[in-house]
Amino acid sequence: MTFRPPLDDMLFCLRQTRALAGAQHADGDDSDITQAVLAEAARFAQEVIAPLNRVGDIHGATLANGAVTTPPGWRDAYRAWTEAGWNGLAAPEAWGGQGLPHTLNAACIEMWNGASLAFGLAPILTMGAIEALTAHGSDVLKQAYLPKLVSGAWTGTMLLTEPQAGSDVGALRTRAERVGDGSYRLTGQKIFITYGDHDLTDNIVHLVLARLPDAPPGTRGISLFLVPKFLPDADGRPGARNDIHVHSLEHKLGIHGSPTCTMVLGDNGGATGFLIGKEHRGMACMFTMMNQARLAVGLQGVAIAERATQQALAFARERKQGRAPDGTMPSPIIAHPDVRRMLLTMQAFTRAARAICYATAAALDRTTTDPDADALASLLTPVAKAFATDIGVEVASLGIQVHGGMGFIEETGAAQHLRDARILPIYEGTNGIQAIDLVTRKLPLNDGTAVVAYLDMLDGIVASLKADTALAALAPPLTEAMTALRQATEQMARRLPNDPSAALAGATPYLRLFGITAGGCYLAHEALTASREADTRAAERIGLATFYAYNIAVQADGLGQAALDGAASVNDPHLLPRTE
Amino acid sequence: MTFRPPLDDMLFCLRQTRALAGAQHADGDDSDITQAVLAEAARFAQEVIAPLNRVGDIHGATLANGAVTTPPGWRDAYRAWTEAGWNGLAAPEAWGGQGLPHTLNAACIEMWNGASLAFGLAPILTMGAIEALTAHGSDVLKQAYLPKLVSGAWTGTMLLTEPQAGSDVGALRTRAERVGDGSYRLTGQKIFITYGDHDLTDNIVHLVLARLPDAPPGTRGISLFLVPKFLPDADGRPGARNDIHVHSLEHKLGIHGSPTCTMVLGDNGGATGFLIGKEHRGMACMFTMMNQARLAVGLQGVAIAERATQQALAFARERKQGRAPDGTMPSPIIAHPDVRRMLLTMQAFTRAARAICYATAAALDRTTTDPDADALASLLTPVAKAFATDIGVEVASLGIQVHGGMGFIEETGAAQHLRDARILPIYEGTNGIQAIDLVTRKLPLNDGTAVVAYLDMLDGIVASLKADTALAALAPPLTEAMTALRQATEQMARRLPNDPSAALAGATPYLRLFGITAGGCYLAHEALTASREADTRAAERIGLATFYAYNIAVQADGLGQAALDGAASVNDPHLLPRTE
Repeated sequence: MTFRPPLDDMLFCLRQTRALAGAQHADGDDSDITQAVLAEAARFAQEVIAPLNRVGDIHGATLANGAVTTPPGWRDAYRAWTEAGWNGLAAPEAWGGQGLPHTLNAACIEMWNGASLAFGLAPILTMGAIEALTAHGSDVLKQAYLPKLVSGAWTGTMLLTEPQAGSDVGALRTRAERVGDGSYRLTGQKIFITYGDHDLTDNIVHLVLARLPDAPPGTRGISLFLVPKFLPDADGRPGARNDIHVHSLEHKLGIHGSPTCTMVLGDNGGATGFLIGKEHRGMACMFTMMNQARLAVGLQGVAIAERATQQALAFARERKQGRAPDGTMPSPIIAHPDVRRMLLTMQAFTRAARAICYATAAALDRTTTDPDADALASLLTPVAKAFATDIGVEVASLGIQVHGGMGFIEETGAAQHLRDARILPIYEGTNGIQAIDLVTRKLPLNDGTAVVAYLDMLDGIVASLKADTALAALAPPLTEAMTALRQATEQMARRLPNDPSAALAGATPYLRLFGITAGGCYLAHEALTASREADTRAAERIGLATFYAYNIAVQADGLGQAALDGAASVNDPHLLPRTE
Repeated sequence: MTFRPPLDDMLFCLRQTRALAGAQHADGDDSDITQAVLAEAARFAQEVIAPLNRVGDIHGATLANGAVTTPPGWRDAYRAWTEAGWNGLAAPEAWGGQGLPHTLNAACIEMWNGASLAFGLAPILTMGAIEALTAHGSDVLKQAYLPKLVSGAWTGTMLLTEPQAGSDVGALRTRAERVGDGSYRLTGQKIFITYGDHDLTDNIVHLVLARLPDAPPGTRGISLFLVPKFLPDADGRPGARNDIHVHSLEHKLGIHGSPTCTMVLGDNGGATGFLIGKEHRGMACMFTMMNQARLAVGLQGVAIAERATQQALAFARERKQGRAPDGTMPSPIIAHPDVRRMLLTMQAFTRAARAICYATAAALDRTTTDPDADALASLLTPVAKAFATDIGVEVASLGIQVHGGMGFIEETGAAQHLRDARILPIYEGTNGIQAIDLVTRKLPLNDGTAVVAYLDMLDGIVASLKADTALAALAPPLTEAMTALRQATEQMARRLPNDPSAALAGATPYLRLFGITAGGCYLAHEALTASREADTRAAERIGLATFYAYNIAVQADGLGQAALDGAASVNDPHLLPRTE
């Protein structure tokens, strides 16, 4: 099954979300640069990365003699990818990057991951490390590591999780001690470390959360350290082996090509580390890289949804079974209404999630010029991460269903998408954590004005629909959805200080309501633009926005009820009793 | 992870659904027989079958030298299971069965499959073969095969699918020719044959759909044949090897312990087969066994949901992370509202689906005495199959999520539940086929009075809620759900003759609406009974019914809108264009 990045959809969505965010760029939206970059990225993703996807699933990453080997072909592909300059697309020009917009990079991230989720994951971590180091690293550290990370010659990792410290990062125990020469010595064990070891590059830059001896308990006592696999020598090349080693690999449901490592620091006296930012202020530094990584994981959700949709569509066009409503027999199953519903659900969710993720990237692009854009990006990040990854799993599951019995056979490839997708709602902060983040930290941003401004923007789209004769039919369900979202938003703000437990209990349906409603508005806006510009695909875009409004956005009211009226029973102490 | 059948819940549900169906039995609902049978089945499922589940996943079924070997321990467990008489629980006493009610057997099927889906699948097929043979077989065939099938000494299979004939059974090409002595000679290839070969028993009784030379095209030209792996000799023991062989095994996403075979008939001149029922009337015979099999697959959905829920609950009670709303730190994650929401969603869906499946079995139990019960069982079968298996997948996926990162690690076992569950919405008629069956064949039953009578019964539950001070709070969301279901039912009936394509396009959300609403009413009825009887678990049952009503039943209105207003865009010809 070939994967082909949907360039036309991506460009259209990029243009719409940039316009809505007021984030047009110097390079212009339809400039030669944007189009050329995306076209070339699409070619690379399709021709070089996509063929690695099944190889990676079958071979997996392997561990022998203390070193991880990636699946056949991965090393060469990674090298070609970095040599083409893709790793530093959005990185600062000062460090060898191209300084291109986040929106452009978002579209590229989607492509790499649509081609192979397990392969596309490595650069996401490197980009996070670049971000953290750029924002918080000392000049010495920047000069030693940023050029290598930006070029992709070295990759980055994030070492947060420990057996007792998952979502609760503050419970971590890895220790760091001051050596006296400005460096630190780290000892401890970390689990679930993505690309903790591999053979793609000749060095790895680990960012490690650890605790100093005099650290206060919890998250206020965590510091961030840079711990290279090999300490750079005088020429900046990998020198002495540092005391950080892979101990074992996890046997996972999916993304087999991506090594998930248990890492041990200090088996031989301690790993040498260098402080990033200030002592005890590591969480703030880590969040710098986590926000970007969360958006990237949302894009992974879009990517796997796109790939699953393409594969299901191709199958549904080829596979003939039964009689179509028009009498054709045997008919391609794409003619059967129930199969069409599945395919349209997949397509509609994919495009809605893409728009939310690109809108988040567009807000990030605006942060340099617009003081409000930072709050908007922060607001949208948990929605982008959780909504896009939830639908990623749902769409991949529907993709299996479209294939019928063939979907359950591994050789078909549809099952791999579900296996791969299933990690996305878990890592980089579970989707439950995202929902809590949205309700407890993001709704209150700027005294609650950030979310109101965003809802006003969405309402503006609905108002435009009402004023447009060709699209007025989309307005009723989206109006109802906006009403539900506004009401739930107001109630959440009221509950948060008075009954936080009720707010937390409603957080997940609230986030889903937010995502479903925003997604419907973005698709409607795409339909509006396509209609006004007499785009060649206007009828299709109007049709898909209509499908979404009448089949998906209609869930908004029920979600609003669950978020508000449903919260009390979640906390009913009679429920979930320990019976044995 | 131990699996423990939830005897208390099962018995309570059994009693309620029997009472609602007016299907009390001579043995009484709380008789010693019912309780003793279920307690002993639970012990067997927990102690003997459950330990096979992971072994089966890891080893899988293997093919060598033309024969399939089941995973280590499976053969002994199967033998012990048949020797204890479990296979013939609901089979006719005339053929060595125990003639116990379908409801009792349903609870047992749930247990075997909760212990291991891949193991529990084999008997489901045997039960289907018993059903078809009892209803349509000649006396000679019955005497030769039924005692062996009822005891479980031999297993049964269903050979329907061919590469070009999946959901479209009428497209099958396997040929049968009259030999002249009353027997037939079959040639052809069948795919996706569950337990098509194995070493659990020394013979296998294949039921094969094939086409006679003078058969009319499509489903009206299909005949059903019994094709034993070994032809019984004069003493009824496995004699000459028949010309039906396993050619290969599928490499599947889940249920690895269950061999899924490609079967070849007639490589050496033709497999000997015996007609069941009349020539060209095989579809009717096959439906006899498929309806029971569909209910059994629904029960598989309940089973995997129950097992996933138990595992997630156990993990959530042990795993400590973060601060609970009451200040405890580190707190078991079950104290976090968002985790509680996931667990309660799992539990509520599981119990609702169980009630729908048991209600279907209760209707089957009534068919001998009540002429309307047959229509009710037919009406509920597609809902039981599709709703219970859809929630089976959803609950298994939530089970992974509750585990966080551990859920993605295969050793945890949560991932296996999702992999195993994913076949359930596909086999025995995809859930799309179930939805179409519900709308096009089941709603019109008895001129539409069957569904109306059922909705009246559900409305009766809601009326009882309103009259009960302790439970009146449950009434509003269930009343709204019933309104949505009634309206959609009436509209579907109207559309079916006038705009069948629109009816088909809304079939899947309609079935979900049906399942969600019925499930909410059953849980409310359990709460009512528990409240009136001052059951020790009354507060919990009321709480769970409330959670369901305010978090799940509230989706009904949106589903009704999708089923009705959403249908037009599904069939919009501008959508899903072939662009390349």
